[in-house]
Amino acid sequence: MQITILGGGGFLGRRLAHRLAKDGALGDRAITGLTLFDLQAPPPVEAPFPVRCLGGNIADPAAVTAAIPAGTEVVVHLAAVVSAQAEADFDLGLTVNVHGTLAVLQACRALTQGPRASGAAPPRVVFTSSVASFSGGQDARLEDDARQLPGNSYGAEKAIGELLLQDASRKGFLDAVNIRLPTVIIRPGRPNKAASSFVSAILREPLLGLETDLPVPEEFAVWICSPRRAVEWFLHAMTMDTKPLGLDRGINPPGRSATVGKMLSALEAVAGPEARAKVRHAPDPAIEAIVGTWPASFTAERARRLLGFSEQESLEEIVQGFIEDDLAATRAERGL
Amino acid sequence: MQITILGGGGFLGRRLAHRLAKDGALGDRAITGLTLFDLQAPPPVEAPFPVRCLGGNIADPAAVTAAIPAGTEVVVHLAAVVSAQAEADFDLGLTVNVHGTLAVLQACRALTQGPRASGAAPPRVVFTSSVASFSGGQDARLEDDARQLPGNSYGAEKAIGELLLQDASRKGFLDAVNIRLPTVIIRPGRPNKAASSFVSAILREPLLGLETDLPVPEEFAVWICSPRRAVEWFLHAMTMDTKPLGLDRGINPPGRSATVGKMLSALEAVAGPEARAKVRHAPDPAIEAIVGTWPASFTAERARRLLGFSEQESLEEIVQGFIEDDLAATRAERGL
Repeated sequence: MQITILGGGGFLGRRLAHRLAKDGALGDRAITGLTLFDLQAPPPVEAPFPVRCLGGNIADPAAVTAAIPAGTEVVVHLAAVVSAQAEADFDLGLTVNVHGTLAVLQACRALTQGPRASGAAPPRVVFTSSVASFSGGQDARLEDDARQLPGNSYGAEKAIGELLLQDASRKGFLDAVNIRLPTVIIRPGRPNKAASSFVSAILREPLLGLETDLPVPEEFAVWICSPRRAVEWFLHAMTMDTKPLGLDRGINPPGRSATVGKMLSALEAVAGPEARAKVRHAPDPAIEAIVGTWPASFTAERARRLLGFSEQESLEEIVQGFIEDDLAATRAERGL
Repeated sequence: MQITILGGGGFLGRRLAHRLAKDGALGDRAITGLTLFDLQAPPPVEAPFPVRCLGGNIADPAAVTAAIPAGTEVVVHLAAVVSAQAEADFDLGLTVNVHGTLAVLQACRALTQGPRASGAAPPRVVFTSSVASFSGGQDARLEDDARQLPGNSYGAEKAIGELLLQDASRKGFLDAVNIRLPTVIIRPGRPNKAASSFVSAILREPLLGLETDLPVPEEFAVWICSPRRAVEWFLHAMTMDTKPLGLDRGINPPGRSATVGKMLSALEAVAGPEARAKVRHAPDPAIEAIVGTWPASFTAERARRLLGFSEQESLEEIVQGFIEDDLAATRAERGL
């Protein structure tokens, strides 16, 4: 089985690539090749199968076609401009998040339609949409059929990507699973341009011994998942039976709704009060204006009961998972 | 006030242009210029203000920029590839319905942002979305916050257009009113490539003395509006206060849910049993598969109570309206 990860140089893409390399198989089928594509060619990954690492613009049809060669059966499309950056640069957000997804659609479609067609089944496409494509804010607990009314450009572009891939699935051009990812914590590395960057920072930075700013009140609730859980969901989405999805390719996975206060308590439980004391209250209305429109909770019934997506672990397990998986590497990367 | 109608050569665009020419004003302000844009330059319209008629591709940014000159205050964006055609030609649907709307967004944005900026308020954009952007089918009576889960490419592309213009409104690039038009009956002229073409044909063709096919059962219900009502809604949307819309620029206007049987009864009431007898039952599963996913009814509370959109007239008035407005011209056009 040949697999492509678009955005394969990013945090989740890289983690998924390492997991595939370790497993050597997806479901009960051996992996025969992996392509990692990102703006800069990702560093190589050691694996029991060939790994190609390509650099290119996701909005460039030729580059995306090269990244999805004939025989590709699964495409994981993680390439995106994140929320605060899409808000700051409208054209960049449109280019990467809309035109990029259009290029992915056409490259996947060409595998089974037109001159490059191989007679194979339409490729599975796992697309990461986002909680940011919804409104509702702090009081929301959204049902699975909730409307996407995004209050930010990133969320609008993700909702558009879902519509494109959903319609292409209906047409038989590809076979999409659109996962609306919660805010993923704890991200390794450094703070980034996502408006939700602080949700990881308030846990990661203290674990690194650094002070950090909390731009929202402690009662502020966020719909979250762990990197470990996100990778499990991707693996499930890459192999699941999509017939039960019918027309509706959008999945609200079973994340967890947690207040910032509960997250800090979990930090304290694992790493002591001195870790929690590194978090400074520093209200930032611009950040709160973006993340404050995102819903704080979902019922996620369909993902849980019908589709077999696994449950999110506890906040303490999330903090512990970061310490086990990422703390040393983040420390090294940042020269701490 | 300068106005542009994109799709100004089409049935509704042309009707709106004639109405603006007749009124000479929009609300309490005189119209100082009108641009009609379509794939082929529309024929001239006699008016008390200058009328420019331009031909071009809606997906060509330069053509759309020429159609939306500096000083434009209102853009009515009706240009689209219709439902059955978008279903038959996926790339054409994407080009016209998605890239076209992106070109409109950028041309409008350039009026108040960047080098062409005039310091004026963002232009009002009235965009015709569609009932086809929803699912639900015959049993549906959709609330105003219903999710758009399109079962056809046209509907997906309209939902995408809404998301683009809604987000551009939030950003202050333009000021959109996205009207999800019901199936408009009775269209003049000939049957077209819309899957819903039959809904007009079963009334229009008998009034012309011609036989016609009914591809669905008489109990089949359709969410409809008249051309007169559509033009009234456009005029309202061109001038209304958009503050009450907030983030949500999508409007389900107060159409009417009617079964085909009721429409044929209205035809009979106005034009006699010999008119109704021209309608032959000829089931067409392909047509029913498309229109059968569209919801047959909406509550349309927001449009009615909050936003002041006028109510749809009766089925008999719709038939009578066609006879008064369009019968003679359609007869002449078709050499009958």
